[in-house]
Amino acid sequence: MAFGFEVTARDRRSQARLGLLKTSHGEVATPAFMPVGTRGVVKTLAPEEVWGLGYRMVLANAYHLYLRPGHETIRRLGGLHRFMNWPGAILTDSGGFQVFSLTRLRKVTDEGVIFQSHIDGSSHLFTPELCMEVQEAIGSDVIMCLDDLTGYPVSWEEARAASERTTAWARRCREAKKGVDPGLFAIVQGSVFSDLRRQSAESLTSLDFDGYAIGGLSVGEPRQTMVEMIEATAPLLPESRPRYVMGVGTPQDIVDAVRLGVDLFDCVLPTRNARNGTLFTSVGSVNIRNARHKDDAGPVDPACSCLLCSAYSRSYLRHLFLEREIYGHRLATMHNLSYYGRMMAEIRSAIRENRLLDYAVTLSTDTEEPDD
Amino acid sequence: MAFGFEVTARDRRSQARLGLLKTSHGEVATPAFMPVGTRGVVKTLAPEEVWGLGYRMVLANAYHLYLRPGHETIRRLGGLHRFMNWPGAILTDSGGFQVFSLTRLRKVTDEGVIFQSHIDGSSHLFTPELCMEVQEAIGSDVIMCLDDLTGYPVSWEEARAASERTTAWARRCREAKKGVDPGLFAIVQGSVFSDLRRQSAESLTSLDFDGYAIGGLSVGEPRQTMVEMIEATAPLLPESRPRYVMGVGTPQDIVDAVRLGVDLFDCVLPTRNARNGTLFTSVGSVNIRNARHKDDAGPVDPACSCLLCSAYSRSYLRHLFLEREIYGHRLATMHNLSYYGRMMAEIRSAIRENRLLDYAVTLSTDTEEPDD
Repeated sequence: MAFGFEVTARDRRSQARLGLLKTSHGEVATPAFMPVGTRGVVKTLAPEEVWGLGYRMVLANAYHLYLRPGHETIRRLGGLHRFMNWPGAILTDSGGFQVFSLTRLRKVTDEGVIFQSHIDGSSHLFTPELCMEVQEAIGSDVIMCLDDLTGYPVSWEEARAASERTTAWARRCREAKKGVDPGLFAIVQGSVFSDLRRQSAESLTSLDFDGYAIGGLSVGEPRQTMVEMIEATAPLLPESRPRYVMGVGTPQDIVDAVRLGVDLFDCVLPTRNARNGTLFTSVGSVNIRNARHKDDAGPVDPACSCLLCSAYSRSYLRHLFLEREIYGHRLATMHNLSYYGRMMAEIRSAIRENRLLDYAVTLSTDTEEPDD
Repeated sequence: MAFGFEVTARDRRSQARLGLLKTSHGEVATPAFMPVGTRGVVKTLAPEEVWGLGYRMVLANAYHLYLRPGHETIRRLGGLHRFMNWPGAILTDSGGFQVFSLTRLRKVTDEGVIFQSHIDGSSHLFTPELCMEVQEAIGSDVIMCLDDLTGYPVSWEEARAASERTTAWARRCREAKKGVDPGLFAIVQGSVFSDLRRQSAESLTSLDFDGYAIGGLSVGEPRQTMVEMIEATAPLLPESRPRYVMGVGTPQDIVDAVRLGVDLFDCVLPTRNARNGTLFTSVGSVNIRNARHKDDAGPVDPACSCLLCSAYSRSYLRHLFLEREIYGHRLATMHNLSYYGRMMAEIRSAIRENRLLDYAVTLSTDTEEPDD
């Protein structure tokens, strides 16, 4: 089944909208958050658990899977869905960001990017064409164009060069893609310069992709700047296509972006924080390693019905973390993804009822710092 | 409900027997293997998963839980069953072995053992009385006497001294235990000397405990010697009481011990091997990291119906291990405990049908060594 998207409702008081994303592996109600399963697994969790938390689409990464186990291995094994036993949809990031952030001796040319593997130092040339081949071999439902992105801060000139190269590569990705079913998303770049963001958005939308990502954010720029870039870009993207802000973010970031008309998100925050012992709760974040939880028989979040909160005390979770027991990582990951899943459901309800702006102010931003 | 045990059937061709162990937290069909949950969790697994694999009793460790989170914390939290959310029975090892194997600056006197914590170097005096207090605070269904054990090799004189001290401590444990419900097991020592094993067994059985363990094995002695010690000891223990060989062992070890009349086992082997990528299968052990599994679409064990073998390829499990993904540890642990659980069920069926000796020869001992 070919990729599709429809907007099903709009918030009367903001740019937020409800949508339905259709893929060969089921439908996804948007706004949606995608748990990160970089290497073909959402860290610590079984696919049944991710599904049980209400998620219907996860993110995997073409760069990592290209290096190991290799996209041809995954193709031979019947594709990534079968490989990782995930019945829902899969979006793969192209690897542009990973090449940028993980590799050494990276050299970007118009042809593509030459880099050394972060695993064994071997040399690779990643081109837009190879990027499509990898993601199609994997069998993704949504594939991302290879992008050239910059860090922060970066000069306007450098940001422009990277953004224009991203557009040229997007055109080649569009031509190289063979399959009919997967959706192909282009990635708007332009760093923190709204004029560059505009140029990028306009040139990409003229090529007509199945969806548009806003990339190169959450790389060190001030939060306010990030929101401004989303605000400057989202209205330039076609109403009828899904909009995806990559690598974002905190609950507040997500609500802000939804308000500005964004439909899709991914971020390591809930899963990575979980493994560090930081839990999102209805009354702010909890640092479970702290001594104050030692004898606490209560749940991490009384308002949560996840496995952790329904069956275990704060005291037990703290014990698991102090003992470095993997099961603690599982329970915390379940909890944080439960929190994010519930938040996205609440966001969708709020949009349906035209009260997203009211919902936004109910999110607690209290954070419990670690003990010294 | 007070601890109890009854032998329900006997193998006509060996000393093996079927039994039913009764505790305040349910019944356990013997011969039984107890997964090791040292710190109040079977590493990587949820209690529901352990239960789903058919296990009804797990092992925890008084030494570890005394140090962290502390037995008083567990008592305040409602006991270990509630703390770790395990509905079945719990046997706690006294910590004698851990004091012997993990601590520094250990000094054993008739009063007890002074040691430094392996966590923070703090000094502690573990006495038989404290050992009972800890295990009763935890709420174990079966508690073990504090024992004094030796390494291997050890002189006859040293082994005798440790064994006699173990008996003296067992007597004090019996007097110190307050609760009526938990079963109290004594531990036969005597290293590899059958005369000392006999003395230990005779002096302990004259005190009438609820069950008897054979300790101090699997500490480096030849396998044949271990079997001989079980053979020399088991017949000296009362028919009406459960017999438990501690820290044993491989599938072959377990079948041998069952044949000699042993009812209970615990061992880190299935769970630790799982985390190293070594899987028990119906056709011998598999080392999943090996390159030969890279493109293997088949299951780890076609004869197994666990989650790993029903939903994932060898290729995927290898990928998870190479990427150090925790989910690989989970799947491998599920599988190895599934293997052990099925083996114990088959052992019980074989005893019921008087064919345990035939069953023993069907176990594959093939092992796949790691690639260089």
